[in-house]
Amino acid sequence: MTRDSLLQLLAEVERGALTAASAAERLASLPYEDLGHTRVDHHRSLRSGLPEVIFAAGKTTEQVLAIFTSLAATGVDVLATRVEPSTAAALLERNPTATHNPTAHTVSLRQSAPTTTGARIAVVCAGTSDIPVAEEAAATAETFGASVARLFDVGVAGLHRLLSVRDELCSAHAVIVCAGMEGALPSVVGGLVGVPVIAVPTSIGYGASFAGAAALLGMLNSCSPNVTVVNIDNGFGAAYTAVLIARASSRE
Amino acid sequence: MTRDSLLQLLAEVERGALTAASAAERLASLPYEDLGHTRVDHHRSLRSGLPEVIFAAGKTTEQVLAIFTSLAATGVDVLATRVEPSTAAALLERNPTATHNPTAHTVSLRQSAPTTTGARIAVVCAGTSDIPVAEEAAATAETFGASVARLFDVGVAGLHRLLSVRDELCSAHAVIVCAGMEGALPSVVGGLVGVPVIAVPTSIGYGASFAGAAALLGMLNSCSPNVTVVNIDNGFGAAYTAVLIARASSRE
Amino acid sequence: MTRDSLLQLLAEVERGALTAASAAERLASLPYEDLGHTRVDHHRSLRSGLPEVIFAAGKTTEQVLAIFTSLAATGVDVLATRVEPSTAAALLERNPTATHNPTAHTVSLRQSAPTTTGARIAVVCAGTSDIPVAEEAAATAETFGASVARLFDVGVAGLHRLLSVRDELCSAHAVIVCAGMEGALPSVVGGLVGVPVIAVPTSIGYGASFAGAAALLGMLNSCSPNVTVVNIDNGFGAAYTAVLIARASSRE
Amino acid sequence: MTRDSLLQLLAEVERGALTAASAAERLASLPYEDLGHTRVDHHRSLRSGLPEVIFAAGKTTEQVLAIFTSLAATGVDVLATRVEPSTAAALLERNPTATHNPTAHTVSLRQSAPTTTGARIAVVCAGTSDIPVAEEAAATAETFGASVARLFDVGVAGLHRLLSVRDELCSAHAVIVCAGMEGALPSVVGGLVGVPVIAVPTSIGYGASFAGAAALLGMLNSCSPNVTVVNIDNGFGAAYTAVLIARASSRE
Amino acid sequence: MTRDSLLQLLAEVERGALTAASAAERLASLPYEDLGHTRVDHHRSLRSGLPEVIFAAGKTTEQVLAIFTSLAATGVDVLATRVEPSTAAALLERNPTATHNPTAHTVSLRQSAPTTTGARIAVVCAGTSDIPVAEEAAATAETFGASVARLFDVGVAGLHRLLSVRDELCSAHAVIVCAGMEGALPSVVGGLVGVPVIAVPTSIGYGASFAGAAALLGMLNSCSPNVTVVNIDNGFGAAYTAVLIARASSRE
Amino acid sequence: MTRDSLLQLLAEVERGALTAASAAERLASLPYEDLGHTRVDHHRSLRSGLPEVIFAAGKTTEQVLAIFTSLAATGVDVLATRVEPSTAAALLERNPTATHNPTAHTVSLRQSAPTTTGARIAVVCAGTSDIPVAEEAAATAETFGASVARLFDVGVAGLHRLLSVRDELCSAHAVIVCAGMEGALPSVVGGLVGVPVIAVPTSIGYGASFAGAAALLGMLNSCSPNVTVVNIDNGFGAAYTAVLIARASSRE
Amino acid sequence: MTRDSLLQLLAEVERGALTAASAAERLASLPYEDLGHTRVDHHRSLRSGLPEVIFAAGKTTEQVLAIFTSLAATGVDVLATRVEPSTAAALLERNPTATHNPTAHTVSLRQSAPTTTGARIAVVCAGTSDIPVAEEAAATAETFGASVARLFDVGVAGLHRLLSVRDELCSAHAVIVCAGMEGALPSVVGGLVGVPVIAVPTSIGYGASFAGAAALLGMLNSCSPNVTVVNIDNGFGAAYTAVLIARASSRE
Amino acid sequence: MTRDSLLQLLAEVERGALTAASAAERLASLPYEDLGHTRVDHHRSLRSGLPEVIFAAGKTTEQVLAIFTSLAATGVDVLATRVEPSTAAALLERNPTATHNPTAHTVSLRQSAPTTTGARIAVVCAGTSDIPVAEEAAATAETFGASVARLFDVGVAGLHRLLSVRDELCSAHAVIVCAGMEGALPSVVGGLVGVPVIAVPTSIGYGASFAGAAALLGMLNSCSPNVTVVNIDNGFGAAYTAVLIARASSRE
Repeated sequence: MTRDSLLQLLAEVERGALTAASAAERLASLPYEDLGHTRVDHHRSLRSGLPEVIFAAGKTTEQVLAIFTSLAATGVDVLATRVEPSTAAALLERNPTATHNPTAHTVSLRQSAPTTTGARIAVVCAGTSDIPVAEEAAATAETFGASVARLFDVGVAGLHRLLSVRDELCSAHAVIVCAGMEGALPSVVGGLVGVPVIAVPTSIGYGASFAGAAALLGMLNSCSPNVTVVNIDNGFGAAYTAVLIARASSRE
Repeated sequence: MTRDSLLQLLAEVERGALTAASAAERLASLPYEDLGHTRVDHHRSLRSGLPEVIFAAGKTTEQVLAIFTSLAATGVDVLATRVEPSTAAALLERNPTATHNPTAHTVSLRQSAPTTTGARIAVVCAGTSDIPVAEEAAATAETFGASVARLFDVGVAGLHRLLSVRDELCSAHAVIVCAGMEGALPSVVGGLVGVPVIAVPTSIGYGASFAGAAALLGMLNSCSPNVTVVNIDNGFGAAYTAVLIARASSRE
Repeated sequence: MTRDSLLQLLAEVERGALTAASAAERLASLPYEDLGHTRVDHHRSLRSGLPEVIFAAGKTTEQVLAIFTSLAATGVDVLATRVEPSTAAALLERNPTATHNPTAHTVSLRQSAPTTTGARIAVVCAGTSDIPVAEEAAATAETFGASVARLFDVGVAGLHRLLSVRDELCSAHAVIVCAGMEGALPSVVGGLVGVPVIAVPTSIGYGASFAGAAALLGMLNSCSPNVTVVNIDNGFGAAYTAVLIARASSRE
Repeated sequence: MTRDSLLQLLAEVERGALTAASAAERLASLPYEDLGHTRVDHHRSLRSGLPEVIFAAGKTTEQVLAIFTSLAATGVDVLATRVEPSTAAALLERNPTATHNPTAHTVSLRQSAPTTTGARIAVVCAGTSDIPVAEEAAATAETFGASVARLFDVGVAGLHRLLSVRDELCSAHAVIVCAGMEGALPSVVGGLVGVPVIAVPTSIGYGASFAGAAALLGMLNSCSPNVTVVNIDNGFGAAYTAVLIARASSRE
Repeated sequence: MTRDSLLQLLAEVERGALTAASAAERLASLPYEDLGHTRVDHHRSLRSGLPEVIFAAGKTTEQVLAIFTSLAATGVDVLATRVEPSTAAALLERNPTATHNPTAHTVSLRQSAPTTTGARIAVVCAGTSDIPVAEEAAATAETFGASVARLFDVGVAGLHRLLSVRDELCSAHAVIVCAGMEGALPSVVGGLVGVPVIAVPTSIGYGASFAGAAALLGMLNSCSPNVTVVNIDNGFGAAYTAVLIARASSRE
Repeated sequence: MTRDSLLQLLAEVERGALTAASAAERLASLPYEDLGHTRVDHHRSLRSGLPEVIFAAGKTTEQVLAIFTSLAATGVDVLATRVEPSTAAALLERNPTATHNPTAHTVSLRQSAPTTTGARIAVVCAGTSDIPVAEEAAATAETFGASVARLFDVGVAGLHRLLSVRDELCSAHAVIVCAGMEGALPSVVGGLVGVPVIAVPTSIGYGASFAGAAALLGMLNSCSPNVTVVNIDNGFGAAYTAVLIARASSRE
Repeated sequence: MTRDSLLQLLAEVERGALTAASAAERLASLPYEDLGHTRVDHHRSLRSGLPEVIFAAGKTTEQVLAIFTSLAATGVDVLATRVEPSTAAALLERNPTATHNPTAHTVSLRQSAPTTTGARIAVVCAGTSDIPVAEEAAATAETFGASVARLFDVGVAGLHRLLSVRDELCSAHAVIVCAGMEGALPSVVGGLVGVPVIAVPTSIGYGASFAGAAALLGMLNSCSPNVTVVNIDNGFGAAYTAVLIARASSRE
Repeated sequence: MTRDSLLQLLAEVERGALTAASAAERLASLPYEDLGHTRVDHHRSLRSGLPEVIFAAGKTTEQVLAIFTSLAATGVDVLATRVEPSTAAALLERNPTATHNPTAHTVSLRQSAPTTTGARIAVVCAGTSDIPVAEEAAATAETFGASVARLFDVGVAGLHRLLSVRDELCSAHAVIVCAGMEGALPSVVGGLVGVPVIAVPTSIGYGASFAGAAALLGMLNSCSPNVTVVNIDNGFGAAYTAVLIARASSRE
């Protein structure tokens, strides 16, 4: 609620078009829907540019279905992440036009007009085992209308593999780099491109990788200044920010 | 070195305009300058859009002076961070047009044309003690041509202070949020704006803040999906990425 | 055993109403019951105002049944937490008037007169996944005679949801806030109310949430001075203290 | 700002007693004062029952003086914690009626009527080295009108020392326990009293005490359910909550 | 091999009673038996007073059987710890006079003469859930000929339970204290007795107990100077040292 | 690609034997094969002396088979580590001459001529439970043509077992030491030999071993200067480096 | 206070030899002396066999002097550890017969008859830098009447140094082993002797020794079962327990 | 002492050339010299190929001088690391032919014949601030007779700097890589060369670098299999092993 809309609402009260009680009501109840277990935030699309996304982990199939349906009914694009196969099946049964990406563990429903936003995002990963996280990022970006270049298995121990995809890297508006183990790839990629690099540590590794903590620390200490970091395995979060950047960069 | 420039160089060899030996030389020696202790990367401005920045901590005054001078000679904007007062004095003596921000511990030299990039960045901090980090971010952004709105001391324990600056927040192309202690502010700011929020944990706090680790963990686990994170006290890194975003967003 | 009761007992010895041997016996054996594996503390209700509570995790069904029966026989209200479904079934079979809250994993038996203590507690949680911990707190508080307002899914990324329940928050004698991820909610709630806020970090989250450690650290570093913290997922402990506060606050 | 005051304000607009612009102004500007570096929260006393407190660590003498003066001018009781000796001297010079507690590192100014709130707080500490933290708690509680019983050096390795002060412990409305090293004291005290115990881990200890982390973990895992915990060395925070509890408990 | 036995051996060489080759052989091959996967140390009983003990975790039933048999054949007392039920069954089938303690997860075979060593050890534990670790300690001590007083469920939140067993505590030559959660019990016990207390942190607890790390840190920081500590859940190690102490103390 | 080969390639362009376009192509595409999910690095054998090795953990049987086949087709020796039994069966069905080491979880295919490299490596482990890691090291070394002396169960608590194998230790070109728990063995071995010792912490242990972290820290802090360390349980990595050392040492 | 003394006291009341009031007084006031900042525990010598010891770190010279004087007046042996040089000078000025060990940072005053307890303790350390901690242990043991064998600089990287002092090791009733870095020495010593080994991790080391945490973890995970552990740098605590063991072992 | 020399010694006893007593003496006393505080290990040169090195940190100038002199007198090459300037001055005064490297904090004395070992080591570092650690490695390697190529400031954010020194890298027998911050450089270097890479994490960095822990974890998780790791800032240890490798590799 901006100052403008507040002034407008108060002006209605001033000129008698709205009672004080109604205005109080409206000021108090910003648009969310209370499902009992969850308060669905229909206002987010307005507020932050992208619709609310369902984090399905730790929710029952019934809860996910209810939130998905509540969001879908408003006409926005809907995305659920960390979806178990059985929940995915239930979502697709109820929403036949939705799409299930089993590697990314996502279910998405595009309802907006086919975008030609021009937003270009490169999703890079270091090893084969990082692909599920990279796919979560890619699926999220595509749901929100960006075009995605997937550049997989280009870890730093074989630099020539990375250097051979430099052109794709350099043509993106934002780059997402997923890596486990020592998490060195974002620093190297950051040195090659002139756009923001969003680093996603993955929980891939063993021993002293401590379930992604080593990669996380590596990325936070990156010597490339265009690198920012999200939580371990958080492909969705990286893509959310990358889409915001790429949309703004490609806007005309 | 892009594929295009490589093709061009090889074409010169093909048509005899360049010997193989010279081409090999040129391919091997990308433009950096070896000062003995440091290899100054004059190529970075070309490669990544912004010039190399001098991290002065742990370098002697002589080393900082040498690098600063080497960069300044190329005509780019020069920025040194974490500058001790005595080093700052030496830099200003040699470069009278440079600027010293003692709160931010930066010395900067603007040599480019006055930019009207239109890039707008909001720098937010939670408490009075976070100001030095916030100032490092602000000074960096201004050196690289962005206009900065400073919104200080708006921590979450008194929400009305934050809500009263909502308009300034919402008009920025990117928001930098510096906070120590529990590091909750980026999540709340992230819920209010529709642009990327770059969170900077600060080492402010005591006891179980563990020199910023608590704030860092809080920010990495933010429930706002538009939040990415940089290292503790790394105001410079946050601003670097924010400038990349704001420039691209304001470009026409 | 206070100095008064000690003097009284010694006076009985002095005037011959009690032998030295009996007095020694009584001084040595404060009222607990030894079940072999467990020493049931029947004295706690007298000593600390609330009866002993059974932490069922890591105990066999037989052990839990024995302690539950031992406590129930004394007429106090009985509460068991972290109860497995099969143990809950056994408890209800033996104690048909007991209540099982499957979300909270509690079994409780109210034997005291219906209280009109007037104690009011608000139980707040940040997300849908925090509900089991919040329910443990709510069930505990209700077993001990408090009335509970459940305010769920009001995380800080959508402040309007929290602000819309401000009235319920502000009318409680004590507020319990359960949150995982960054654990920012207690700070924000703490800034809105004038009563003690007891923060419960939950193990909800992923990656660098480190099973609740990130939320725990965030809460310990809260910038709101009316926030104290209990162990991760310890809804019971939060409610125990909240009941002590609310009872004292509502007493007339 | 409650719903009632909102309705009242809107009613004024409705009946023409207030213009829309003025109402917007008033809604937007909750009472805080912007000192440039700090936004002093004069509203807190109204909102949360106790005035804002100045955490002096990391602030310059000038900043502390400015905030202290700004608060003192409103007539509330003023408390500054973690005050360096030189800053304390400056505060006392400007505010001759203020009090400096050099062990607690506090400066306080009582401006309210002498309270007879009846609020009683026991401040317990395990060893001689914990006294500065305990004194910060005691000074805070006294500034806010509670009477304080100081029970120092009663660590668990000599139980008879603790048992000899049991009467003072049991007559308090809330108990604050400060302990370093293994942090066992709150559990033992918690078993002796029937009121909330607020545990303050101190950074006292060596080796594997890890600057208070061992004590903090011990307290969080207390087997006494009436124990809640604050940050390491945070005597102020413990006292703040203890005062809220004791005031409510002693109210008639 | 002591200097005395070395001199004796060399003297035999000197007087021709032993060839150089045989002496070299004997010096090189101290008595152990190579089972391929394991080198059984038959010499330990001679060297350190107590026979080698089999840590069965991570070994196959076949490996445990082989080592057990190898040791039993030498006539010493044999103890296996962390024995799975199926392995225990196999051991008992082959060694019908061995004893299986299913709570302690031990199998033991007494072959020495019934000792009247007089060694007395008290095994204390804080809660019902700590009993398996306490039983491992008790079973170990009994296998090595000590008499054991089991004092279970005497945690510090109900001091009267502990104080009521003070006599048994004070009559032991060494005390073993097993506790999880905050690990406070060894400090309190250490203050009550005049003999060494060996503290065993258990992995019992939840949340920030971090699988026993909180209890471990608490015990290492004990303010009672007669407390030493062993690894988490290491009831065996505690008993091994307690037996060495109690044997020496009861020797006449 | 060395400067020599670059000069040669450019010389071909200079004399017209190669077009600029072809040269650009060749410079960009170093030899790797893109399987979609994986970019197989056929060039590694040339670049670093030993062929690429397949880390099978986290890869599907299909992916492992594809990579194994792709590598085998080039004629190099092929090694897969961390192979599940079902994957091993599939690899052996397709490659009947391959060898499966079930303790080491490796599958290897020797295709090079029987080496008589003379490279000698000692693989030492502290306890029976460390054998799987030690076997991974041994299998790797043997696949790459070294001869291996296995010296198992020679932990430091029974020094005579270690001293009895000193001759085998001292005749190796490099020594690999695998140990869990306190990780003391590499220091002791390091003091006995004059060649590099590569320490492998294993995840064997319990309680405060923290899944190998204690052993890792112990090894990093070794007081023997000829000790370097690899990741927890990383027998493969230790052997890889040991082979490089032993090959170079035995070369004539 | 044992049951016997309680019965005796109560019998006096029964036969009129003691009033109830006096008995209550005596029961409540176990013998400690309240110095204001400290409650000196004169009862400890009676309760636990050894007098209270003053931990001087974090106490003012005045406080240390007051406690030292209070203890000395009772005729027991007095020991102060972690004494700053200036405090040591003050103690010696007031107590001319006291002894200052500047390496150990102790001041001790022997007042008991020259003991011929026969208690023998070996104090071992790994390197020259561990000597201060080892000396604190030695000084403590000597103050309490044990004879001490100092075996310094016998780290595991040169086993022959350790083996050459095996005779002294094997003749002690208890062994104290101080080591930093990897903390391997107690395991090796534990394998050589048949008495309890008390391990003291020292904060000696650098990098990943983490101020003694690596050594501490190593010692807790020792594979020698006769090793127990005290806090980092806690030479005093190790000696306290070693004296208890050695006294009991040498008693006739 | 090998089996051969043992046999020889025993043979002397057999034929009467040596008394049993003398043989026992000789077997017990391997050659070290006891300076009281330190047992200088003159045997190490024989045992492990390189002489003992003095770690001067935490030793007094007198102790360092005594050990240096003791070693120098035997004619070996002597190296002291972590030498304070004042200690260095004292060493040079007594040993005028010794060399002080102030950046490396080393003092070394070459006494062996000028080696033409041919051992070649590359010492690489990521940034200017890593140079002291890199110099410690270089000085150590040179003292032990290797020739060193210093390749400084070639961090991964500017790959062209690293690629331009590839020839020097590839001609070394072993490569030492020193890096702080994210510690990514060893992985990249490891992918470029075919010899062992010894990674040295440095304590350079800030915030979440945690004094080198982030770099350490990164290096332990390196995806390049030819990387092994030493302790943080341990340039000496890296060089010691590198020299062993390079000497063996260059031997003919």
